[in-house]
Amino acid sequence: MNSEKWITETKYFTFDKLILDNKEELKEVTIAYETYGRLNAQKSNAILIMHAFTGDAHCAGYHEGDEKPGWWDNMVGPGKTFDTEKYFIVCSNILGGCQGSTGPSSINPKTGKEYGLDFPAISISDMVRAQKKLIDFLGIEKLFSIVGGSMGGMQVLQWVNDYPDKMLSAIPIATTMRHTPQQIAFNEVGRQSVMADIAWNGGHYYSTGNPERGLSVARMLGHITYMSDISMKEKFPIEKDKERKAKFNFNADFEVEEYLRHRGSTFVKRFDANSYLYISKAMDHFDVNNDDFLKDKNINIKFLVLSFKSDWLYPAEQSEDIVKSLKLRGQKVTYCNIDSTYGHDAFLLEKEDEGKIITSFLNNLEGGVISGKK
Amino acid sequence: MNSEKWITETKYFTFDKLILDNKEELKEVTIAYETYGRLNAQKSNAILIMHAFTGDAHCAGYHEGDEKPGWWDNMVGPGKTFDTEKYFIVCSNILGGCQGSTGPSSINPKTGKEYGLDFPAISISDMVRAQKKLIDFLGIEKLFSIVGGSMGGMQVLQWVNDYPDKMLSAIPIATTMRHTPQQIAFNEVGRQSVMADIAWNGGHYYSTGNPERGLSVARMLGHITYMSDISMKEKFPIEKDKERKAKFNFNADFEVEEYLRHRGSTFVKRFDANSYLYISKAMDHFDVNNDDFLKDKNINIKFLVLSFKSDWLYPAEQSEDIVKSLKLRGQKVTYCNIDSTYGHDAFLLEKEDEGKIITSFLNNLEGGVISGKK
Repeated sequence: MNSEKWITETKYFTFDKLILDNKEELKEVTIAYETYGRLNAQKSNAILIMHAFTGDAHCAGYHEGDEKPGWWDNMVGPGKTFDTEKYFIVCSNILGGCQGSTGPSSINPKTGKEYGLDFPAISISDMVRAQKKLIDFLGIEKLFSIVGGSMGGMQVLQWVNDYPDKMLSAIPIATTMRHTPQQIAFNEVGRQSVMADIAWNGGHYYSTGNPERGLSVARMLGHITYMSDISMKEKFPIEKDKERKAKFNFNADFEVEEYLRHRGSTFVKRFDANSYLYISKAMDHFDVNNDDFLKDKNINIKFLVLSFKSDWLYPAEQSEDIVKSLKLRGQKVTYCNIDSTYGHDAFLLEKEDEGKIITSFLNNLEGGVISGKK
Repeated sequence: MNSEKWITETKYFTFDKLILDNKEELKEVTIAYETYGRLNAQKSNAILIMHAFTGDAHCAGYHEGDEKPGWWDNMVGPGKTFDTEKYFIVCSNILGGCQGSTGPSSINPKTGKEYGLDFPAISISDMVRAQKKLIDFLGIEKLFSIVGGSMGGMQVLQWVNDYPDKMLSAIPIATTMRHTPQQIAFNEVGRQSVMADIAWNGGHYYSTGNPERGLSVARMLGHITYMSDISMKEKFPIEKDKERKAKFNFNADFEVEEYLRHRGSTFVKRFDANSYLYISKAMDHFDVNNDDFLKDKNINIKFLVLSFKSDWLYPAEQSEDIVKSLKLRGQKVTYCNIDSTYGHDAFLLEKEDEGKIITSFLNNLEGGVISGKK
């Protein structure tokens, strides 16, 4: 790989309709996706990467003119953990999202206007159903692996639940089989914050603009839960705030306040408030903690489950529950609770340990399946 | 005590002016307070109770016509931990509050209108300074004890810092010497939520009404931090939500959502949004983690420090830091980290263990000081 930026681009896959969990039919569906590397002749080297709550299809390389690379660029690329010289990587924007895939901000073919709250209720299973159509379209019979952190990990577990014969391995990271009341509560505060903004206007704001104030507050709260107490102390040492004490007003007196406000205000430029509502609800309703999960005894998927010690949003206990559930169903599971102070964000940041553990896991998967170029 | 309701009432203490930490002079100050029991002839049996963020002076008994008793009624009353047959209990609403004491919703004598954001910046030290005036007014030279949980605990530590010769003992509960960035961050999200509500209108809303939507969201977030993951699981068992799954909409699908919305909407009827802003800032700026704290080597206060195992808002480590700091200054300290699943709310709910430990501590204080009636 030379020093020039690796330019990647988003493609669009469209199909006529998708039958949703709630029985409604969603018409004229578009799924934005990116692929990196090449699908081999046996079509056996495909890895599907699934993004978290507010992520997108652009997980690696640079879009033309961009300063920042994709959201998992430290893990995906030539010679990296998800080695694009060896694997064919697919990443798509979720159904219900707002970065190219059909969601509440898309045009409703019935009315010619944005869906808003006329967009149907969607589930994690619906997101996965749309991804399955993309994978079929790409001609992939069986995925070498599926991987995702946070809500991406929910999609991993949903894939395993819905299409257990479609993958050789699965890597759910920093996730859960279902939300606790506390996790629902945090999401609900975010939703209420969006809906409390009169600019939200019952979801009809596409001609007037995103309800930025409410959405920004929701994002600020999200950021607290993505970090840890320790990572905040490290990022915002109290000493730096000392001199600010005299200011005392309702502007930002502390560095952490400035940081959160900044994160909030940049977020609202890129994310649709209704998507925020729909996706968070899909997470809250996600539930594979049931008897049907992997009940076919002939299924053998190799699992790598990862959690992070300082993650208090999706704490290690929830990953341990996943491990227990998989073991009870006779699956092969490797589990690692990685040392990190980054909190939930660790799945995006702990490139070293996370990367090596995943690389080792992928290398150990049936050697015959993939032949690397190197 | 007979089965009739114990009727208590709020009184008002006013004084001409208070010089604040920021050098401003606040004029015509009122402090709402309640007292229970009788001050003995030696004036040696007074205990000052300080309330948390959104509390008030009414900590025990019933106000005429009320269904619910004061906020610490399980601890304060005849024969209870803070035994009103033995002690003279004082509790006042903090400066900056909105339940009888002077705060941003009070009339500014200069303009004849509510202060709003013209109310000066106040600190925990200013709150304590106003309490000191009340204690002087009541003729109390030395307090038998001072006690408070959460922000009440900050006031306890501030009293010790500012008037170390004015109390025999001190009981800071579930509190800290200063806020971490995470604690500031939670407060900041609450403030931003209030200020994002256009009804807040730069603090000028007294003729149009409290910014209820933003303040309600702030309170909902607060409630998450006051409970624990476990107490939420116990209060909102997932099974009760199962049947709701089909509903999936932006109404409350889960019991925890309904609960939080209810708590938010009742809160905004009783609490002033500007008070919320001012008091939370005072907490964020509170800091007794400094060399001046208890530097006079002649001071000997007996301390009981309490924390609760499931409290993640003011975790035990912060109480341990208080203990360490006091021990390094040669003080007598008893510390107990009480087993509880209630989270931060435990200081209001763990009547049994908390009550017994405090009773034992108070009883062990120099026996000659107080002679109980019993």
